[in-house]
Amino acid sequence: MRDVAVIGAGMTRFGKYLDRSMKDLTREAVDGALGCAGMDKSKLEVAIVGNAAAGLITGQECIRGQVVLREMGIGGIPIINTENACASSSTAFHMAWLYVASGMYDVALAVGVEKLYHEDKRKSYAAIGAAVDVEWAKEMQASMQASKDNGGRGEQPAAGEGAGEKRSMFMDFYAAFARQHMQRYGTTKEQFGRIAVKNHYHGSLNPHAQYREEYTLEDILNSPLVAEPLTRLMCSPIGDGAAAAILCSAEKAKQFTTKPVNILASTVGSGSDRGADEPGITERVVQQAYKLAGVGPEDLSVIELHDASAPAELVLYEELGLCGPGEGGKLIDARATYFDGSIPVNTSGGLISKGHPIGATGVAQIYEIFTQLRGEAGERQVAKPRIGLTENGGGMVKGETAALSVHIFSV
Amino acid sequence: MRDVAVIGAGMTRFGKYLDRSMKDLTREAVDGALGCAGMDKSKLEVAIVGNAAAGLITGQECIRGQVVLREMGIGGIPIINTENACASSSTAFHMAWLYVASGMYDVALAVGVEKLYHEDKRKSYAAIGAAVDVEWAKEMQASMQASKDNGGRGEQPAAGEGAGEKRSMFMDFYAAFARQHMQRYGTTKEQFGRIAVKNHYHGSLNPHAQYREEYTLEDILNSPLVAEPLTRLMCSPIGDGAAAAILCSAEKAKQFTTKPVNILASTVGSGSDRGADEPGITERVVQQAYKLAGVGPEDLSVIELHDASAPAELVLYEELGLCGPGEGGKLIDARATYFDGSIPVNTSGGLISKGHPIGATGVAQIYEIFTQLRGEAGERQVAKPRIGLTENGGGMVKGETAALSVHIFSV
Repeated sequence: MRDVAVIGAGMTRFGKYLDRSMKDLTREAVDGALGCAGMDKSKLEVAIVGNAAAGLITGQECIRGQVVLREMGIGGIPIINTENACASSSTAFHMAWLYVASGMYDVALAVGVEKLYHEDKRKSYAAIGAAVDVEWAKEMQASMQASKDNGGRGEQPAAGEGAGEKRSMFMDFYAAFARQHMQRYGTTKEQFGRIAVKNHYHGSLNPHAQYREEYTLEDILNSPLVAEPLTRLMCSPIGDGAAAAILCSAEKAKQFTTKPVNILASTVGSGSDRGADEPGITERVVQQAYKLAGVGPEDLSVIELHDASAPAELVLYEELGLCGPGEGGKLIDARATYFDGSIPVNTSGGLISKGHPIGATGVAQIYEIFTQLRGEAGERQVAKPRIGLTENGGGMVKGETAALSVHIFSV
Repeated sequence: MRDVAVIGAGMTRFGKYLDRSMKDLTREAVDGALGCAGMDKSKLEVAIVGNAAAGLITGQECIRGQVVLREMGIGGIPIINTENACASSSTAFHMAWLYVASGMYDVALAVGVEKLYHEDKRKSYAAIGAAVDVEWAKEMQASMQASKDNGGRGEQPAAGEGAGEKRSMFMDFYAAFARQHMQRYGTTKEQFGRIAVKNHYHGSLNPHAQYREEYTLEDILNSPLVAEPLTRLMCSPIGDGAAAAILCSAEKAKQFTTKPVNILASTVGSGSDRGADEPGITERVVQQAYKLAGVGPEDLSVIELHDASAPAELVLYEELGLCGPGEGGKLIDARATYFDGSIPVNTSGGLISKGHPIGATGVAQIYEIFTQLRGEAGERQVAKPRIGLTENGGGMVKGETAALSVHIFSV
């Protein structure tokens, strides 16, 4: 396989865009990536588009990528549509990498785009609910309590509004998982809260973040309860947005930029029927990525990970090997994962503050690492980063993450 | 890129399966492919699942592949979901080929699965309508006449039933295209009819075909009109089903089978903003495939092509170079494309008779070529075929096919 680099990246600010189409969001992100790479769209040889929910939100199924790209004059080339729930566009990026690494094409476009907001909120909830096995969810639905309205945060249907629709159980899973961690390791609600404080602070420094307010620990803990110990401000919100990246063979990248960002590892995995003592999907995929890249957690300068909720980030500290099992709480207590700490995590604000338009999140994480590694992250810039990692999970089947993608980059 | 072979293929009979789930259909097809390859599922290293419409039909978006495969104990490996309308699973097959050809994995599973029938017919119509730009279709909808119920054939919403839903315009496009061909070349409605006669005859010989009735030319011409010159029996029906193929590096294939089917070319393209004198998507992608495979139309022994309607097949004769421009009618008049003719086309019965569960069609075409090239096609077996081709188109944007995939195989 050939060496592959990212030579351009772009994204929209994440937000609530009831008046903007997927085409419009895609155009802004792709134009940004092309501009960043100093490249005309005619140079693109293949495009992969990740989207998770347009079928249920806008009715656009089947050829989402062609619809959004043809609008801006990108056609003729292979256009592939990929879907892997919240990991849809990291999967698209992985396929783009494969096309270039294999030698089949030299220049590939990876796009993630999502519109989750809809005037009919039930559509948003149904879309998020489709990231689990919907037949199974239907069976479970009866046995679960209705939850109250969290204004989009916590990805939960409001009582009444979601009636008749499949309910997303993700925050219940995260909450149960958090309680287990608290019981086992003495992790506290305040520690989860501190992660949310950090990510909201990072988001306040990021012009692309959906929410740019800073919050105190008290604000976080006193925001409405989603499911103990999760409060609303510890949970990722619903959002709309797009992100794009241009991949190029390392050899050819020199023609376009003096600041390529190298892809050291590109992996995707899925959940499995594992024994209780076998590693989970995250450890498996992360270890594979470390091995491919020839690096370990001690080599990482900056990380974007899938903080769909604050406890998820804390547990991922451990699963990525940034600290030992049960020590995630200490890491945030020591402020180590702030952008100016020893191992910065979610400098973009993460899903909690930057936002989480699910199909756009994977490439948006890569946008942040690309920006950081090039030293272009402004107020939230990490000091001289050398190696960055993205971790992006999606969906759930049989109690384990359905799809998970890890990428490692270097300059 | 390495040489890649197909070592196993399986499929369900296509049909109306209101009582069967996507999981159930997938299991039958994948078990068939594994059985054919004499391989345990634990040997699979990556899986790509093509589906076009489950989001709109069953509400299962995001992680369709994980949901259907985890149910039968396939997990842990990368599972990628691809979508390209009616070309969804040929695209999945192409990605599987890329994984193996690149050297990343040795054994890959490609699956196509679709359930189009639903108790609420409006869902079926909405799903088919999602293979165009739905925003554009909404604008067009007002200016088009309602059409009558065609019992699923012709992929048209019934008057009244489709009210408020996006209407599939495919058969109107095919009809307009057919009229153009008639005017330009003197092609007759009877010639389109003869293609339907042939494909229904082939379907009568194929145990996997949805419709196994034979029809006379009079039956075809006298069946209800969809849009002049198309009658119902000239159009592909709605259907449910699944198909699967196992790809393996040519080197390793020997471990599993003495009858591998080699992949000479694997291509995917998309429509473009082309000038009137530039080649269309089909010619472009077909020529690319011929070049990659090092063969021409004169070398082909057997072809499966995208006869969503009979005129599409006739025009494809010309676009594939089986005859000159305007000569497609003569080819069917001479019965050349019967399974025992000089250049057999759609020996499976094609989309018209075998059925067209859109996301399953691409791999099902490959199943037929695989079966023919191995000499296992029973009553419809072509005499000593050596090279086979599949052509699979999907969706429409700006008046041109949105995605198109061509594969060429040999023994």
